[in-house]
Amino acid sequence: MQSKIQVGVLGATGMVGQHFVRFLEGHPWFELAWLGASDRSAGKKYREATVWRLEGSMPDRVAELTVEECKPGNAPKLVFSAMDASVATEIERAFADCGHMVVSNSRNHRMEADVPLLVPEINPDHLKLVPLQREKRGWKGGIVTNPNCSTIALTMGLAPLVKFGIEKVLVTTMQAVSGAGYPGVASMDILGNVIPYIGSEEEKMECETQKILGTLNGGSVTPLPAAVSAHCNRVASVDGHLVAISVALRDKAGIESVRRAFDEFDPLPQRLNLPSAPKPAVLYMEDKDRPQPRRDALRGNGMTVTVGRLRECPVLDYKFLSLGHNTIRGAAGAAVLNAELMRSEGLI
Amino acid sequence: MQSKIQVGVLGATGMVGQHFVRFLEGHPWFELAWLGASDRSAGKKYREATVWRLEGSMPDRVAELTVEECKPGNAPKLVFSAMDASVATEIERAFADCGHMVVSNSRNHRMEADVPLLVPEINPDHLKLVPLQREKRGWKGGIVTNPNCSTIALTMGLAPLVKFGIEKVLVTTMQAVSGAGYPGVASMDILGNVIPYIGSEEEKMECETQKILGTLNGGSVTPLPAAVSAHCNRVASVDGHLVAISVALRDKAGIESVRRAFDEFDPLPQRLNLPSAPKPAVLYMEDKDRPQPRRDALRGNGMTVTVGRLRECPVLDYKFLSLGHNTIRGAAGAAVLNAELMRSEGLI
Amino acid sequence: MQSKIQVGVLGATGMVGQHFVRFLEGHPWFELAWLGASDRSAGKKYREATVWRLEGSMPDRVAELTVEECKPGNAPKLVFSAMDASVATEIERAFADCGHMVVSNSRNHRMEADVPLLVPEINPDHLKLVPLQREKRGWKGGIVTNPNCSTIALTMGLAPLVKFGIEKVLVTTMQAVSGAGYPGVASMDILGNVIPYIGSEEEKMECETQKILGTLNGGSVTPLPAAVSAHCNRVASVDGHLVAISVALRDKAGIESVRRAFDEFDPLPQRLNLPSAPKPAVLYMEDKDRPQPRRDALRGNGMTVTVGRLRECPVLDYKFLSLGHNTIRGAAGAAVLNAELMRSEGLI
Amino acid sequence: MQSKIQVGVLGATGMVGQHFVRFLEGHPWFELAWLGASDRSAGKKYREATVWRLEGSMPDRVAELTVEECKPGNAPKLVFSAMDASVATEIERAFADCGHMVVSNSRNHRMEADVPLLVPEINPDHLKLVPLQREKRGWKGGIVTNPNCSTIALTMGLAPLVKFGIEKVLVTTMQAVSGAGYPGVASMDILGNVIPYIGSEEEKMECETQKILGTLNGGSVTPLPAAVSAHCNRVASVDGHLVAISVALRDKAGIESVRRAFDEFDPLPQRLNLPSAPKPAVLYMEDKDRPQPRRDALRGNGMTVTVGRLRECPVLDYKFLSLGHNTIRGAAGAAVLNAELMRSEGLI
Repeated sequence: MQSKIQVGVLGATGMVGQHFVRFLEGHPWFELAWLGASDRSAGKKYREATVWRLEGSMPDRVAELTVEECKPGNAPKLVFSAMDASVATEIERAFADCGHMVVSNSRNHRMEADVPLLVPEINPDHLKLVPLQREKRGWKGGIVTNPNCSTIALTMGLAPLVKFGIEKVLVTTMQAVSGAGYPGVASMDILGNVIPYIGSEEEKMECETQKILGTLNGGSVTPLPAAVSAHCNRVASVDGHLVAISVALRDKAGIESVRRAFDEFDPLPQRLNLPSAPKPAVLYMEDKDRPQPRRDALRGNGMTVTVGRLRECPVLDYKFLSLGHNTIRGAAGAAVLNAELMRSEGLI
Repeated sequence: MQSKIQVGVLGATGMVGQHFVRFLEGHPWFELAWLGASDRSAGKKYREATVWRLEGSMPDRVAELTVEECKPGNAPKLVFSAMDASVATEIERAFADCGHMVVSNSRNHRMEADVPLLVPEINPDHLKLVPLQREKRGWKGGIVTNPNCSTIALTMGLAPLVKFGIEKVLVTTMQAVSGAGYPGVASMDILGNVIPYIGSEEEKMECETQKILGTLNGGSVTPLPAAVSAHCNRVASVDGHLVAISVALRDKAGIESVRRAFDEFDPLPQRLNLPSAPKPAVLYMEDKDRPQPRRDALRGNGMTVTVGRLRECPVLDYKFLSLGHNTIRGAAGAAVLNAELMRSEGLI
Repeated sequence: MQSKIQVGVLGATGMVGQHFVRFLEGHPWFELAWLGASDRSAGKKYREATVWRLEGSMPDRVAELTVEECKPGNAPKLVFSAMDASVATEIERAFADCGHMVVSNSRNHRMEADVPLLVPEINPDHLKLVPLQREKRGWKGGIVTNPNCSTIALTMGLAPLVKFGIEKVLVTTMQAVSGAGYPGVASMDILGNVIPYIGSEEEKMECETQKILGTLNGGSVTPLPAAVSAHCNRVASVDGHLVAISVALRDKAGIESVRRAFDEFDPLPQRLNLPSAPKPAVLYMEDKDRPQPRRDALRGNGMTVTVGRLRECPVLDYKFLSLGHNTIRGAAGAAVLNAELMRSEGLI
Repeated sequence: MQSKIQVGVLGATGMVGQHFVRFLEGHPWFELAWLGASDRSAGKKYREATVWRLEGSMPDRVAELTVEECKPGNAPKLVFSAMDASVATEIERAFADCGHMVVSNSRNHRMEADVPLLVPEINPDHLKLVPLQREKRGWKGGIVTNPNCSTIALTMGLAPLVKFGIEKVLVTTMQAVSGAGYPGVASMDILGNVIPYIGSEEEKMECETQKILGTLNGGSVTPLPAAVSAHCNRVASVDGHLVAISVALRDKAGIESVRRAFDEFDPLPQRLNLPSAPKPAVLYMEDKDRPQPRRDALRGNGMTVTVGRLRECPVLDYKFLSLGHNTIRGAAGAAVLNAELMRSEGLI
């Protein structure tokens, strides 16, 4: 792989877009060469069009790029979509139609039957939907999505237990404010408080989890036939969605087997040495009070999901905690890892 | 009831003790007349012996009382115990032996077979254990306890549903820092963070709930034969423990019946007009994002438990939220309400 | 005073308007009878037009009032203005022109030469501007304003020292998020952070302080000829603006005299027993680490300003802290106290 | 410089000690080879003796080192002291006496006449006190100190203005909780609050600043004859002390000159390319609301001090903000940079 693949970001000036800009900086395979945003920003330098809200500075090279309209014309073949759900549907389809591979963080196409909802550590075979998608829709390109930021912490925590047969999942989330974008949650709402409601989040977690853990059957995914129930809450943390999981398993494995499954989990992206695949993918922490959002979300450059406190559950079988960095593993990093797998599989 | 009943507080200088001092101020039945604390404080005025950590000022009248040793001699018949668990066992027993009625917030005696773990709205009949306790232990007084601060939010939220037959309970807590006393949780641990562990809290919630919702059979309580599983977490709120509950019911009641049960809940303390019994005992809030700790914990002077977001649970039957003020409904106020019921029942 | 005076609130559905609604509930002189808001809300019940964001519930009686357009027609003679600065200028003038007395929390008219910027404890004589204002503008009513929420903590803290001759004031604020309204400060900006900038706040504090402490000379106020310099910061507190003050005095009083001045401060509203005048107006706390926003802002129902830590300043003469509740003493309560003084002086 | 210099840390298991361990990891000149702690920890592996409280993991290599008693015997020549003030005096002297160079973060020896209070960007010549210290005390080694964590943000912010002649400094701090160590500030004290008091902090800032900016005259430092006044406050941020500074200058430079001075500041450690010397040492941020603790404290690996909002001060001459990372630039990083300068000057 001599020269880098040029990539673009749709919706580059928003918060998720900024996360893509930062995550792609210094990437060994991809070079950010194109920035798309609303008409209001088009024609300006990225530096002028963007209020940078992340820690540290905007990368100098990107700052000087000129923002373009979100039209397929001159964009690179591979584009990451950080677009707001209110506009993503039509634009992503237009790009896919014109031959672009759209690796999207937006929720719009996640649940469509021919669109992979991809987590490379869990369901890399779902990429086989892409040729079917092209055929069915008459597209030259395609759309591949990553899950919602809270779903990723849940499904990655569950992934090592899939081999025992997951039958029921009850999860309660404690989600960081960065998950709501900017300005997002009002400080009057969250200081010294918990908001026990996030619009559509519970529904998304429940159905996305079933699709991600589902089985590819011919041309579509059969959802995992497991009951999934989510309680979603916003708490006063900045980064990192922590989820408390209870799970019922078909195979009544002993706690030592379950504990060992976390250590033995060795999924494809890690074996392929994909650049953004963290090692380990899932880290079990032995301490009695971990994982914790502020202390653990950034492990593995924000790509490792940390779990802990595995114990028996008096209602289902086991209970434990899982933590994922919502803007990295749950957004920009997830999409980039998806693209790396697609590159590795020859789809890009 | 012409003149007030004199009462004392064991462990009066600590955080829980301060909550008793504040809650008893202006009480229509009880007058705080005696303060017990460690030898180090005995002999000093309360003002001198205490670093007041609550909002507002120490009540002037109490500030001038002289702190005494925690010995039964001159204390009033009715004493509230705010003692630390490390010393409560022997001292509470010594007081009970000498004819004092000890209404305790400490955990030490809660799970003993002949000691009521009392929530007046739920199990007022458990007070019938007191005569048995006296007989068995040869005490002239007795010990009555209230539950842990997180258990109360759970059991009060469940109480209106008891009539449907509770079979399984899965609860995840988001608990305020005031529940850990002073200095309690280090700010380095909680700012922008969640601590997914509170020592012994899950075990306490599970077994206390079964006892509170249990049935008095002859001389002891048969625990509710329901599986109870708790995930306990500390979050960056100041007051108010919020709990997310999923519950399985024996009678498969429709959601309207369950919803109505919260409004129809009309327990004994409210019918008796006990001074600290809030009306309503349990308030169902219709808003989509309530209850919230900072905005709702103080309803009903901190004695009303607020619930909300009742919806069907894909794993068990229903899920909803419950919130209780941990230092009022979950500590000082709970014990005072216990004493009011005991007075009403002629036990004091 | 047999029957209550009917009053209205302009801008009743916003955050400041909600504070007026709550503060006026149960007022012994005034009865809230009229609510004005934008065209969008007019015609609806207050309950329907308003997302209530304060702790506790919307007062039942007010909830049933119908919101009206902000037009002078049917409103009571006395109206409190909680209007946004973007619209307040014209509407307040229209009401004053039609014979209403507008007691405004908006910043728009504060610095006009014939408009009192009133703090009843400090400059009650500035009310003499009202007749001149009427004459000059041909109004049947008038406009009286209260200062910005941070200015009040500064000027009330300084008020007891006015007798020593204030020559220089250097103040650094640590302001609560509620001062920015709703949604106001984004949680992403303030969690674990300080924002060292609040638009126009420093300029307001500097010039408002000079006017409040200024001298009425014939038909206008001569500003206090003291240099005032402000550093304004937003911190992660909910209510209460804390300000650190250094001051140079003309009379080189000893520290005991200065300390005593806080205790001896006995201004007019307290001597008149105005209903919202707290006693004391300014409370000096002896503890080494007070006042603190969360623990002290609500003293005197949020109307007492607390000060502490008086000590010598190596650069100016003395330094100390002052704390005022920004939405009560710094907004709704300030305006109501202004109206009480005006009633007492026969202006209403 | 072929092989690395072995170094030790006194007080290695505490919070400051952990910061040294982390900061020294991968250092190009120094290799952490020796860990001293209390008798209780001596003999254990660092992994066993330490509850690691920093983000990320304890470095593997250091985790396996055996902790030793804090006695001079086998320790390397160069030791960093992270000892608690309660024990530092005697132990640091014992090490200096036995030929060790003690580069200390403790406050104990900072204000002694023959001990450098060193900030390499400001007063590198103060190192000339070391030979005098040896001679006077008969030591074979010596002690060099760095300032308090809030002093560093102040003095580095002032350093570029020294050339204009600093005559008066008035500073108000907003300090992060990590400055208080562990457990440090109770969460009950700081959530939604500000604590306007930090024991001895104001005195330390005032006198340390005068010494750091003072002039070496023969065998001692003549303090800067400038009045310095500090207001110190604890706020709910995790890392980064933000200080609001007003300053009076002898040379009445225009604001453009003062602004330029920040950009032109080019001190010795940066010219020497010392490994921990950040570039720039002081970064002026143009944004209207910066620097901010959470977003800017980590610039330059936590070693760059960020300043902003330079404007005229109505009371003194100019006002601006300065921010330093308290546990890096204000503790471990400061000491390591001191040692790098000492190595560069041939003192180690």
